Amino acid sequence: MTEHSLWRFSRALHRAINERQFDELEALIDDDVQWAIYGPIDMFPFFGARHGRAAVLEVCRRIADNVRVHRSERESIMLGVDSAASMMRYSLTALDSNKPISLRLAQFAQFKGGRLVSLRVIVDTFDLVEQTLGRPIHLPKIA
Amino acid sequence: MTEHSLWRFSRALHRAINERQFDELEALIDDDVQWAIYGPIDMFPFFGARHGRAAVLEVCRRIADNVRVHRSERESIMLGVDSAASMMRYSLTALDSNKPISLRLAQFAQFKGGRLVSLRVIVDTFDLVEQTLGRPIHLPKIA
Repeated sequence: MTEHSLWRFSRALHRAINERQFDELEALIDDDVQWAIYGPIDMFPFFGARHGRAAVLEVCRRIADNVRVHRSERESIMLGVDSAASMMRYSLTALDSNKPISLRLAQFAQFKGGRLVSLRVIVDTFDLVEQTLGRPIHLPKIA
Repeated sequence: MTEHSLWRFSRALHRAINERQFDELEALIDDDVQWAIYGPIDMFPFFGARHGRAAVLEVCRRIADNVRVHRSERESIMLGVDSAASMMRYSLTALDSNKPISLRLAQFAQFKGGRLVSLRVIVDTFDLVEQTLGRPIHLPKIA
């Protein structure tokens, strides 16, 4: 039984972010990849949609410029033959401020021939924004 | 081939929210269900963690008090025997303000004997907060 593409991709992504080793990651991304991390791109320019390997590698470099991953915990996972969905909790450091950030996200990935062809990520963005600002945003109670 | 528990649950949930028919939903929720919608509970008291059928039904009533679902679109889905993960886009109306809200979320569900035993939902919360406020929140650019 061969290893699921998700594990290889996840290792390569973490290595790219923490060690700035992008070769392995590059080999695991399809030419025509579709990529999206939904969130406020004004604050986080490495969020948003990207198309194609070069654009995705560029955005991974931007992420590597901004955060280091300390720990990741898988809260839910579903694996298909060429697909995966997982809910993750990451402990990060924001490199500019040296601030610890705890992030919850869901990712849906599709692979073809072992290479990533689609990744979509939903982040609990309000929590992320507040942690990044370092202060709560006052919200009215609506219900 | 029997219908996946997710479809029955989703229909019952939508009916509960839009028509306030909770009987069918109640029958599809396990006594001991674990439930969490991650997000700012100060603004949205129906977010957060709940345990047990009564607490989950109560929170579904609160959701029904606050929104109507117009349309839902499945962007990704993975189904296991007793589990499901999906990325959804909802078009809602906030009932107090009559404001349209477009919401992207990821849900991870587990079933046992056709009943929901676990549901965890990640929402693109910053986008939701801005839409609910009806104005953008100014954010600094961090990268």
